Amino acid sequence: MSSSVRIAVIGHAFMCKAHIHAWRTAGRFFDLPKTPEVTLLVGRDAGRAAIAAERLNVAESTADWRAAVTRDDIDVVDICTPGDSHREIAVAALAAGKHVLCEKPLANSVGEAEEMTAAAADAEAKGIASFCGFSYRRTPGLALARKFVQEGRLGEIRHVRAQYLQDWLSDANAPLTWRLDKDKAGSGALGDIGAHSIDAAQWVSGQRIGGVSALLHTFVTSRPVGGVAEGLGGAGDFTSERGPVSVDDAAAFTARFDGGAVGVFEATRFALGRRNANRLEINGSRGSIAFDFERMNELEYFDGRDDQQSQGFRRIHVTDAVHPYTDRWWPVGHGLGYGDLFVHQVADVVAALEGDQQARPHFADALDVQRVLQAVEASAEDSSRYTPVAR
Amino acid sequence: MSSSVRIAVIGHAFMCKAHIHAWRTAGRFFDLPKTPEVTLLVGRDAGRAAIAAERLNVAESTADWRAAVTRDDIDVVDICTPGDSHREIAVAALAAGKHVLCEKPLANSVGEAEEMTAAAADAEAKGIASFCGFSYRRTPGLALARKFVQEGRLGEIRHVRAQYLQDWLSDANAPLTWRLDKDKAGSGALGDIGAHSIDAAQWVSGQRIGGVSALLHTFVTSRPVGGVAEGLGGAGDFTSERGPVSVDDAAAFTARFDGGAVGVFEATRFALGRRNANRLEINGSRGSIAFDFERMNELEYFDGRDDQQSQGFRRIHVTDAVHPYTDRWWPVGHGLGYGDLFVHQVADVVAALEGDQQARPHFADALDVQRVLQAVEASAEDSSRYTPVAR
Amino acid sequence: MSSSVRIAVIGHAFMCKAHIHAWRTAGRFFDLPKTPEVTLLVGRDAGRAAIAAERLNVAESTADWRAAVTRDDIDVVDICTPGDSHREIAVAALAAGKHVLCEKPLANSVGEAEEMTAAAADAEAKGIASFCGFSYRRTPGLALARKFVQEGRLGEIRHVRAQYLQDWLSDANAPLTWRLDKDKAGSGALGDIGAHSIDAAQWVSGQRIGGVSALLHTFVTSRPVGGVAEGLGGAGDFTSERGPVSVDDAAAFTARFDGGAVGVFEATRFALGRRNANRLEINGSRGSIAFDFERMNELEYFDGRDDQQSQGFRRIHVTDAVHPYTDRWWPVGHGLGYGDLFVHQVADVVAALEGDQQARPHFADALDVQRVLQAVEASAEDSSRYTPVAR
Amino acid sequence: MSSSVRIAVIGHAFMCKAHIHAWRTAGRFFDLPKTPEVTLLVGRDAGRAAIAAERLNVAESTADWRAAVTRDDIDVVDICTPGDSHREIAVAALAAGKHVLCEKPLANSVGEAEEMTAAAADAEAKGIASFCGFSYRRTPGLALARKFVQEGRLGEIRHVRAQYLQDWLSDANAPLTWRLDKDKAGSGALGDIGAHSIDAAQWVSGQRIGGVSALLHTFVTSRPVGGVAEGLGGAGDFTSERGPVSVDDAAAFTARFDGGAVGVFEATRFALGRRNANRLEINGSRGSIAFDFERMNELEYFDGRDDQQSQGFRRIHVTDAVHPYTDRWWPVGHGLGYGDLFVHQVADVVAALEGDQQARPHFADALDVQRVLQAVEASAEDSSRYTPVAR
Repeated sequence: MSSSVRIAVIGHAFMCKAHIHAWRTAGRFFDLPKTPEVTLLVGRDAGRAAIAAERLNVAESTADWRAAVTRDDIDVVDICTPGDSHREIAVAALAAGKHVLCEKPLANSVGEAEEMTAAAADAEAKGIASFCGFSYRRTPGLALARKFVQEGRLGEIRHVRAQYLQDWLSDANAPLTWRLDKDKAGSGALGDIGAHSIDAAQWVSGQRIGGVSALLHTFVTSRPVGGVAEGLGGAGDFTSERGPVSVDDAAAFTARFDGGAVGVFEATRFALGRRNANRLEINGSRGSIAFDFERMNELEYFDGRDDQQSQGFRRIHVTDAVHPYTDRWWPVGHGLGYGDLFVHQVADVVAALEGDQQARPHFADALDVQRVLQAVEASAEDSSRYTPVAR
Repeated sequence: MSSSVRIAVIGHAFMCKAHIHAWRTAGRFFDLPKTPEVTLLVGRDAGRAAIAAERLNVAESTADWRAAVTRDDIDVVDICTPGDSHREIAVAALAAGKHVLCEKPLANSVGEAEEMTAAAADAEAKGIASFCGFSYRRTPGLALARKFVQEGRLGEIRHVRAQYLQDWLSDANAPLTWRLDKDKAGSGALGDIGAHSIDAAQWVSGQRIGGVSALLHTFVTSRPVGGVAEGLGGAGDFTSERGPVSVDDAAAFTARFDGGAVGVFEATRFALGRRNANRLEINGSRGSIAFDFERMNELEYFDGRDDQQSQGFRRIHVTDAVHPYTDRWWPVGHGLGYGDLFVHQVADVVAALEGDQQARPHFADALDVQRVLQAVEASAEDSSRYTPVAR
Repeated sequence: MSSSVRIAVIGHAFMCKAHIHAWRTAGRFFDLPKTPEVTLLVGRDAGRAAIAAERLNVAESTADWRAAVTRDDIDVVDICTPGDSHREIAVAALAAGKHVLCEKPLANSVGEAEEMTAAAADAEAKGIASFCGFSYRRTPGLALARKFVQEGRLGEIRHVRAQYLQDWLSDANAPLTWRLDKDKAGSGALGDIGAHSIDAAQWVSGQRIGGVSALLHTFVTSRPVGGVAEGLGGAGDFTSERGPVSVDDAAAFTARFDGGAVGVFEATRFALGRRNANRLEINGSRGSIAFDFERMNELEYFDGRDDQQSQGFRRIHVTDAVHPYTDRWWPVGHGLGYGDLFVHQVADVVAALEGDQQARPHFADALDVQRVLQAVEASAEDSSRYTPVAR
Repeated sequence: MSSSVRIAVIGHAFMCKAHIHAWRTAGRFFDLPKTPEVTLLVGRDAGRAAIAAERLNVAESTADWRAAVTRDDIDVVDICTPGDSHREIAVAALAAGKHVLCEKPLANSVGEAEEMTAAAADAEAKGIASFCGFSYRRTPGLALARKFVQEGRLGEIRHVRAQYLQDWLSDANAPLTWRLDKDKAGSGALGDIGAHSIDAAQWVSGQRIGGVSALLHTFVTSRPVGGVAEGLGGAGDFTSERGPVSVDDAAAFTARFDGGAVGVFEATRFALGRRNANRLEINGSRGSIAFDFERMNELEYFDGRDDQQSQGFRRIHVTDAVHPYTDRWWPVGHGLGYGDLFVHQVADVVAALEGDQQARPHFADALDVQRVLQAVEASAEDSSRYTPVAR
């Protein structure tokens, strides 16, 4: 058996960069049973893929993903493309006996996600694993929050409050990129960032969303077709033709969890000044936690058992050796960055490939998020009526 | 014409203490056209009213509110009782030609509020004024936020995010006080604190809520009848009999504003660790504001027109002489307290009694809040279906 | 014996307003053994004193402080004038058998303060009390910090870090007011605000400063004589003649405490953007506290005995009924303001006048602060050489 | 000319791990003229060096640093050892024509640092470069602060306030590691972390420290020789013999800058609860900045030219594409971590090796810091007397 894990990365935008960085870095900080090697970069366009491979120092590139996912020298297929291509690639890769790490959202519809999950179940029987890239689970602060819930520190959970606030669409002339095209992206703020909130809320709280009442809204219904894409958004050419925005700009919904908690969710890219405020607050009968990714190295924790005169939210700098993941990095107080989450993901995935324990979230977990997204959309289309999540 | 304004205060709990303090303090810091004098304290029980009057240094007390509101030596009736008595007292007082300041929520139902507003309209024709005590409008930070909206600093408003989080019911053995009795209080978190959020959101944003989709929930359905009331809650006697909680513990709703904004509201007394987090955030196309009453002397403000490398939420210490109300108090940086809001309210009310400008919110404003509350309850009873506010 | 305490207030600027407000308010919130009555307002100029008395609703005014402090109908003399007049008034009042509350700093020199303290000691033998107005001791958060130290929660104290940062002199054209005149004010930032830090640091830590090494600096050496005084500073008329600034703009010193702690102090009115950042942080072997008056309702507290994974500074909202002073005010989470500190001061002073317990700080405490100030000035004049505090 | 830069890393503790990670990562995010390759790992003990090389995936290891620094296949010598060995290694490497990157502090004495700087000057004439690892300069927030100063946004600088607070020695039984041994470390908190503050303060403010008045203190004078080193500190075996601590636990000093600013500095490892609070605040006549490494992705900025009612410290999330370094990483709002600073350092160093612009800080810059440290120690030994920095 080879001592390395050979990866084909599909896609070469922002997320792909983060993944490749992580495949290469994980082994230096974590004890991995095998050494990851990024063997192949796959892009839609052969020329652009070659340029990206050069820049990212990947030895080989191709535009033929179908061939790529069946190659003998590939162990893992890492899918970083827009959601509309996930199903086809993932199913083919699993059928070819490759482990699959697929970026979120798993798919653009529940139907696709179900098909993928079925394929993953078949593959699992043959020892093939599937993972979905809800990378925020790898944030030490959120992992610590989940641990606190599991340890019973929060008691009975009453409130889950999740906001994912960005602002890169505030300018009505930001360009019409693929993230604003329903065919490519499946949905807007809801699937792109709201999906993170749904996964984190369920994972940290240990409860599943039973039903939702939702509102979706598009503030700016057309945008310039021309302009320069950059980061998530870019600078639109406001003199150019405008095309229709076919996704939601903002999503808001209330929820009931199966364990009795009440949830409030909001996802938007129009919260001017909030750059990446992925926030989660949970209130229980004994304690509370609050997290904001803009301060990703911190977790706020309230312990209701502290003596009354000294009670208060604690600002935990989640960089101590006793915290999740952090013993492999720097001394306490020296924070981690966004890119490091992907290193944790690689460490978890590679460990799972070799070990007994299944890394999560797998496709079935991601399908569950997809079902919540579907319920949100159904409720929004039905006058916000309370809509159970169909499972 | 007398140079003083003579007030009868109805009620003698926490809120009454704040009001009396304010009637006496306002003239020392603000230039009032007349001097307020608290002449009479009215309580349900003559003995307890007398004790309260003694403690609060009010010369006279009585249990007969009907007589009180018709006395010649009373100019203003200040109603600080639970909501179920507001209508009867206010209507009688207005009919007797007294100005009325009534605590919020204005009433326990839209029907009552409409009756009161009609009475106020009749009285207004005779020069009699009505006010509702949404005292948070008197917070310099919120008044500044409203000013920023009016000045166009936020541009087109997209998001309104209001949370009112308290935690004094987190303990399942907190006692069954009047605030948990639907007959007395009308509703729970919704009317008690959610009403503040609704009023503030509409007042600051300059937009009205057009419709809502809501969820109400009671986490702890029965509580000890015995125990010691204290502050808002108290220490229940968990060995005593338990009675039913007939109001909501938490309310959550999404909203659409008539100006195009999307709203998310949440009110609860179960957010462990949040003592009085009355929060409002508004995101517009040019700027944003964020406020939290736990830091009542601050307003966060984001100006999207700042040069890109120096953009960030500003923490404004709203204690400068150029800020609303603050020139009458201390040097910059020396904050105000909760009690001072009522001083501002008195200053505004007394100024309005003598001037041309009507003080707000009057009963019609408060009726509008009541109508939103009604829509929230209707939606919650109809599977969270989107429910327009009936106006 | 009279059931009231009759007060003559000397001075009628900002601080006097705060004092009069407090004398009148304390009895409504605290159980006082006697009722304070502000009987007389004393000002340098009879006409201006009369106007102030009118505005502040004090029945009588005078320009003759000597007569005032010997009147039979006065029990307490409350001195709110600049420091250069404290000694003469306080000594005369004590000699006349009046209790004295004197604003800080107690005097403009150690010599004056010693004379005053001697007079206070003589008076004390006759049952006459003296107090110095270090009002920040009445902040619930600082009082709680002191309690934590006394309870041993901080363990052995190692670090005391005190900053008092204001910015009202940042503009080089702010006017030349009395606070910039050494003859009137004694010193600049050092005595005006640094004195608060010294008192708070010693009071909270329970240790006394043994010696200091100091630096004093004046950034702007001349300022416009003309202009409008307002708040602490005002708007200077930059076309007017400039006069010399004779006090320090900033003071910085390191210190050794008699209990082994190391101190770092800084006081300035040139910290642009810091409106009234009166900060104190103390680190011990078991815990730490941090306070900033700009968030006066909060205390940060770190408990080193918390389990390692949940350690963090707690943000205590010091408004709970179990906290110092706060049970007399509002429900938890409803903060206090600067003016309320003076109410606490009055409550403590009036209680002390009637009780067995002496209210602190008395003149001897204030003399101790004066001695530290003297050591600071001596060190600054001697090349910052370490200078023991002469006691 | 080779297209790669070959590096020998000397040392294999925490800092070495950060450096190797950076040498390997920089090329993926920054456009480097040459590709760094870590060729050789050097350790004191051949066996432990081999183990470290294996773990860190470095092909070769040795215990013979003298041979290493003269090898033809080495271009850069990267020194990550304790300070007592810096001089000897650096001088030999420079003499052998190798570029040198040396961790801070440059040396354990001014004499050593002067010798190294002289060697660097000689080498520079031959095209050989020297760098000192004040890595905090690579923090986007601090780099932005410096930019603001250079752009004149702060105006005339009055105050520099630098604190470097850690707490890993708070436990009196933490073990006696090399960082507590004067022979190895040169000094304690002063040189270890205070040196960072000095460098950052001078670099950001653009002013040099002219003189200081200082206090050094050791709280715990002996510590267990046995125990487990971990992170910066570890768990001492309190039953083991205790050895003397020969360095300072805390350093505090005031300073005068050559441009007229007043400085206050404090460095300690006893500030319980402060994990890595490397803080810098600068107040000028027009603006202020404040930074805290515990929130390394943020910079607080106050612009005194904002209109008065909206003035306040802005919390800038320094992750926008317009900020220093950040365009190469993630979308706005997705923060960086401590490890990423070393990537920036590598990018700057490699660019400098090939370009016209000299990377800073070079040895002469680091010597300047050393001279300030010397003045601090001299002042502390001379009763804190003001001591000019000898240059």
